[in-house]
Amino acid sequence: SCGIKESNKPDLGILVCDVPASSAGCFTKNKFRAAPVEISLKHLASGQSIGLVVNSGNANACTGEKGLEDAENMAKLLASKLNTDKENILVASTGIIGKCLDMQKIETGISLAFDELASDRDAGLAFSEAILTTDTKIKTAYTEFELSGNKIKIAGTAKGSGMISPNMATMLAFITTDAKIPANQLHELLNQAVDVSFNRISVDGQMSTNDSVYILASGLACKDNLTSEQLTIFAEHLTQICEKLAIAIVEDGEGATKIFHVTVSGANSKSDAHRIARAIADSLLVKTAIHGEDPNWGRIISAAGATGIDFDPNNVICKIGDEIVFRNGVPTDFNIETLKNIMQRKELHISLSLNIGSAEDTVHACDLSKEYVEINAFYHT
Amino acid sequence: SCGIKESNKPDLGILVCDVPASSAGCFTKNKFRAAPVEISLKHLASGQSIGLVVNSGNANACTGEKGLEDAENMAKLLASKLNTDKENILVASTGIIGKCLDMQKIETGISLAFDELASDRDAGLAFSEAILTTDTKIKTAYTEFELSGNKIKIAGTAKGSGMISPNMATMLAFITTDAKIPANQLHELLNQAVDVSFNRISVDGQMSTNDSVYILASGLACKDNLTSEQLTIFAEHLTQICEKLAIAIVEDGEGATKIFHVTVSGANSKSDAHRIARAIADSLLVKTAIHGEDPNWGRIISAAGATGIDFDPNNVICKIGDEIVFRNGVPTDFNIETLKNIMQRKELHISLSLNIGSAEDTVHACDLSKEYVEINAFYHT
Repeated sequence: SCGIKESNKPDLGILVCDVPASSAGCFTKNKFRAAPVEISLKHLASGQSIGLVVNSGNANACTGEKGLEDAENMAKLLASKLNTDKENILVASTGIIGKCLDMQKIETGISLAFDELASDRDAGLAFSEAILTTDTKIKTAYTEFELSGNKIKIAGTAKGSGMISPNMATMLAFITTDAKIPANQLHELLNQAVDVSFNRISVDGQMSTNDSVYILASGLACKDNLTSEQLTIFAEHLTQICEKLAIAIVEDGEGATKIFHVTVSGANSKSDAHRIARAIADSLLVKTAIHGEDPNWGRIISAAGATGIDFDPNNVICKIGDEIVFRNGVPTDFNIETLKNIMQRKELHISLSLNIGSAEDTVHACDLSKEYVEINAFYHT
Repeated sequence: SCGIKESNKPDLGILVCDVPASSAGCFTKNKFRAAPVEISLKHLASGQSIGLVVNSGNANACTGEKGLEDAENMAKLLASKLNTDKENILVASTGIIGKCLDMQKIETGISLAFDELASDRDAGLAFSEAILTTDTKIKTAYTEFELSGNKIKIAGTAKGSGMISPNMATMLAFITTDAKIPANQLHELLNQAVDVSFNRISVDGQMSTNDSVYILASGLACKDNLTSEQLTIFAEHLTQICEKLAIAIVEDGEGATKIFHVTVSGANSKSDAHRIARAIADSLLVKTAIHGEDPNWGRIISAAGATGIDFDPNNVICKIGDEIVFRNGVPTDFNIETLKNIMQRKELHISLSLNIGSAEDTVHACDLSKEYVEINAFYHT
């Protein structure tokens, strides 16, 4: 805690690797990309990083030239502690938009964090806590598995509850592994894993200026680079870690009381399936129906029908849980009591089959409550 | 009132023209198009209509073959009263999705309405009331103007408060005029007017299965068809009527406490300007900020940046009311007290200039309150 947050809650963390690590990042596509994103993109060019510094409470976004200098100086401050070049350091920020960082506080924070550097579980949890904003809990994921006799570990932590909110927010994730993977392959694996996890969630359909997912691979668990077969196994585990963190973000969505998974199958393409699943997951009327435990299938199919994607409404099958509610263009004779019981669950599955192709996709979402409005309307900057 | 609504509120209206009128309609692009939309599209083929029947309380959507028969029978029932063919009758429905109409009630309703047919103001207001669902007030617009010595009148009424909600909802509008305009020209004028009015509003970003805008032109005010010059003047008035009704819908948006207008200028194309304006108007974070009177410009520019449309963030100028809040990639030194005063208004203007082209567009929206969640989560089907 270095005072960036007025609450004096933890607000700065550093992540340091014992050796130069392969590194990769995935970033927001928002046109208003924050300074730390710009600087990290530059520093990732070499594909090698030794450390990373992240602050919460201030996003260093929409801060112009000064913001870029500050982000670069953040990297420089950690680099000097580690006796390395600033290009080996990544940076991330989350919090309020449009205010410059207090670099005095950042410097103090980096010193404090550096003095407490440790490789135990508590240090990891402290890092997970330092990156939070409106989150109500820390989000971590861990797995280990063997690859040709080498035990490989992947650990990750994430923050995010509204997709974006200039008061406090953004989605950030940090993943580390001791697998040995060249940076270009690591980047590809990360992109693929992010695409099926962090890119498949919906809290409020908003994209932050700071969204970033980083991975550092030390290679300390094995002598040689992973073979292509081993990469496939690694990719599966990496994807699971990302999915776990992504769903933890949805579960901790601002005001969320339930989560639901929307699967669209039988589409002509994965992108069609994705667009329809996202339209349903983002729909305010679906989100409020889930919140109110109303088995309102009409809102689900209307959201699908409004996407402009071509399909035959008469061939669509819509299910809530295992209950078919709509088929042949009309509602089925479903059991309303069964359906009401399904709606009371904390976790729901909605599926829509278009029956025109074989592509499928799933989006994970949370409901919309009055608490969301409260958080976003009345907790001012 | 014929009992379609359990509340026994008015739920059926008819509109009859003294002579066969030129007619045109604009409809939802939702794939799950309701039965009355399908039937009206068929009946509009001739470009001539004598009457129209609309019910509220039941949308006759997702009702399969039976729904189509029922919609056709609705037309037939009014046609027999008017001694005409069913093809001269248009139909519209709004309300619950997935339930078949009670045709006995519809028949009673048409008889009752027919007996009360009148051309006075009260009859018009009664029609405006019969089409309401979750609306809190009737929405009407009227204008008259001279064209080469002929007094032309245009009258319109609309309903809609959530863009769609299977409990109760949809947007419907009915416009009448005594101008003489062939159906194909009328259709073109209606499309143009709808495009800049009803297609430029945002309550919750949802598109109904039943959305319809109808216009009937009796031609009784003039002997000859309007000339192309006269059509231009007529189009302006028609657009104003549509805009007035569209804004009345936003003002009566579910749970709305404020309305705001988002204008995006300096874009490369009107469609780019529209997409960005809509992204801002639909953004939950912008809507909740407006609701909470928080001058949160960061949410506005973030919503714009997330559209994927190409522009230079450093050239963007963002204004709230007349106050410039963002320029040259950084927030301005705006007067926070002035801004707070602006945010307290019931009607707000947000503008964003991209400074790359000359295209401009505006979207009209309402804020998002807890009341919206209450209405859509807890008032069950």
